[in-house]
Amino acid sequence: MGATMLGIGAGLDHVFGGPDAENQQLPKVANPEVPFYGTHQAGIATPSQDFLSFAAFDITSSSIDDLRDVLKQWTAATAALAAGRPYGLSEEGADVAPTDTGEAFGTGPSRLTITFGFGPGLLGSLAEDRFGFARKRPHHLADLPGFRGESLDPKRSGGDVCAQACADDPQVAFHAIHVLARLASGAATLRWTQQGFGRTSSTSREQPTPRNLMGFKDGTNNLRVEEEREMNKHVWVQRGDGPDWMKGGTYMVVRRIKILLDVWDTTSIEGQERAVGREKVSGAPLGRDGEHDAVDLKAKKNGELSIPANAHIRLASPEVNGDQRILRRGFSYNEPSLAGSGQLDAGLFFICFQRDPRRQFVPIQRRLAASDALGRHLLHTGSGVFACPSGASRGGFIGEGLFA
Amino acid sequence: MGATMLGIGAGLDHVFGGPDAENQQLPKVANPEVPFYGTHQAGIATPSQDFLSFAAFDITSSSIDDLRDVLKQWTAATAALAAGRPYGLSEEGADVAPTDTGEAFGTGPSRLTITFGFGPGLLGSLAEDRFGFARKRPHHLADLPGFRGESLDPKRSGGDVCAQACADDPQVAFHAIHVLARLASGAATLRWTQQGFGRTSSTSREQPTPRNLMGFKDGTNNLRVEEEREMNKHVWVQRGDGPDWMKGGTYMVVRRIKILLDVWDTTSIEGQERAVGREKVSGAPLGRDGEHDAVDLKAKKNGELSIPANAHIRLASPEVNGDQRILRRGFSYNEPSLAGSGQLDAGLFFICFQRDPRRQFVPIQRRLAASDALGRHLLHTGSGVFACPSGASRGGFIGEGLFA
Repeated sequence: MGATMLGIGAGLDHVFGGPDAENQQLPKVANPEVPFYGTHQAGIATPSQDFLSFAAFDITSSSIDDLRDVLKQWTAATAALAAGRPYGLSEEGADVAPTDTGEAFGTGPSRLTITFGFGPGLLGSLAEDRFGFARKRPHHLADLPGFRGESLDPKRSGGDVCAQACADDPQVAFHAIHVLARLASGAATLRWTQQGFGRTSSTSREQPTPRNLMGFKDGTNNLRVEEEREMNKHVWVQRGDGPDWMKGGTYMVVRRIKILLDVWDTTSIEGQERAVGREKVSGAPLGRDGEHDAVDLKAKKNGELSIPANAHIRLASPEVNGDQRILRRGFSYNEPSLAGSGQLDAGLFFICFQRDPRRQFVPIQRRLAASDALGRHLLHTGSGVFACPSGASRGGFIGEGLFA
Repeated sequence: MGATMLGIGAGLDHVFGGPDAENQQLPKVANPEVPFYGTHQAGIATPSQDFLSFAAFDITSSSIDDLRDVLKQWTAATAALAAGRPYGLSEEGADVAPTDTGEAFGTGPSRLTITFGFGPGLLGSLAEDRFGFARKRPHHLADLPGFRGESLDPKRSGGDVCAQACADDPQVAFHAIHVLARLASGAATLRWTQQGFGRTSSTSREQPTPRNLMGFKDGTNNLRVEEEREMNKHVWVQRGDGPDWMKGGTYMVVRRIKILLDVWDTTSIEGQERAVGREKVSGAPLGRDGEHDAVDLKAKKNGELSIPANAHIRLASPEVNGDQRILRRGFSYNEPSLAGSGQLDAGLFFICFQRDPRRQFVPIQRRLAASDALGRHLLHTGSGVFACPSGASRGGFIGEGLFA
């Protein structure tokens, strides 16, 4: 059998073309590789991929050396996988289980990105400072307050470290989390995972506006990753914002939001459009003709506001939120309905990035929770907030600044 | 606002180009539409799509008229959706909730197929004959026996009617089940659903062999839908096989199979290859060089069988199963891991089609359950068996022969 070290190496050289062969054997994929190293982590200003595999980990070791080691290994694995290379095969023989589990052999990079974030529990507090990071903890990273109408499942919430794997192939995204989970062994353990598909927001000028599972175009006026000035103003942590290790980073909020489809589906088109503030088919703001027509919150027709006072796009708009914007980068989800419920279990895994959740996500969500007409069709069932440090440079690792 | 009947119609004409405009507005998609009407149902001999949304329904009404009506509506909806058209918009106004939920507006057909099957409970027995179908029930459709090593969850098993929606876009597959569930209202209710991605078997000569989540190429020697003679021999119900209404139909078995990744991932490459009977990277049968080299079950090296006695490909092969073959057409799945398990919840939603499960799936699975070296890495957690009738012709409906 060919399962000797040599055999595997030869096989992979055949599949991957070897390090110097420019992957001649791989099928050509449009825009296949997103660079891993850089000022910012990939997967934030990257035009959204088609699939998500998200994982939150608990750090189970109390040793800072174990934590550093697992972050170094995750960094090295991410660099390899994002380049379409397997990770952790070459140093091992056929009689040992390789780190790379193999299901992404030959898929190509598929625009894989893995974005890491640190939860409040990891960074610690004066009361509990597990790794001595409390003095480096940014004030921006606070546990989220409770919001009206949420019903959070602790099994789908929190975590010490998160990894957002996105790719244009769901198997590639799955494989990334699979390999990270294997590397975590002994230092960290999976806390919860979430899978998603079908970008639920526009994030790039180059991509058409997708529809969410309520049937509406979503994210028409979202921040675009190409808007560098807006990204610096609303997303990237700037010098002076807090501790140095977060400069070039950002804060991620995730919310698992179930759509109560039974009620939504029996709401008239007119009722749905008034709740959203846009036309269902065209995506135009109510009272206008085209999706990209400007939203005029003051416009009236027959003495009534064209976009109702409790419409989602009004309450989420920068105009009523002190000019605050966030970069939304969520995905739809659909999970098994099990006998008894008789209903689909589907919704949105909301992900957003921002410079300061205390001034961005929190007040916006508080306003939505109080009045948004969409609110009665949604149930927030999971939640997390994470500090995503800057990107890594060659030889460095994600979160290195925390250990300095 | 434009949410009048006219507004919606006009909007959709814009999106879909209207019935006579040949969808000029839609982006061109390679091979976008799979014909719905035909001798056989679509989604069986259709080269496998990339995504699955599967639903099992319980019929809650005891009225045969309700059952006939829901099958007629499901047939009409399937014909529309498979052609990339919304279903149930035109007859309603803006003050009514439309049947079509809208999340697939503008996606194109995306090779959508929906394949229906009837469970043993619907067809009845002498003891319980809910709709008077017992005398038309084929002997081929028997409840599956118990198999060694399974741990079936009744919440993920059974059902009166199943719908297998497959498409190259997960949102299109979701939408199809969403619309069917809405149409079921009052006559049927969702029993369970399952989502899948990444074909786990070759089904067509035109598609490369995919890898399953164990990292192995899967289905190298599967039946190919282009093999007409083999399809007639092993998959399609022939005249004289049983009741007339099943001629041109087939029997579907589904099994939700969890991969116990923790143990599998820590198994050496050599151990994995011996369990499967193939090399991991190349997919070649052990002892051979290329994926498509013939499997020689008698080959020996140094006095030992190259393909071990308990290797999966040996025990599943036609040679040891009385020349019986099945058309495998499964998908991978990955669902949330929740706090506490610390493990990925991933595996295979196995689907196969055959002319007679009693002679095909059942004895093959019995042999695998007894001896397959892969078995200790797998856990069957859900199960179903369904009779898939022939295709519908224009003006007819799926299962019409049952009502004759």
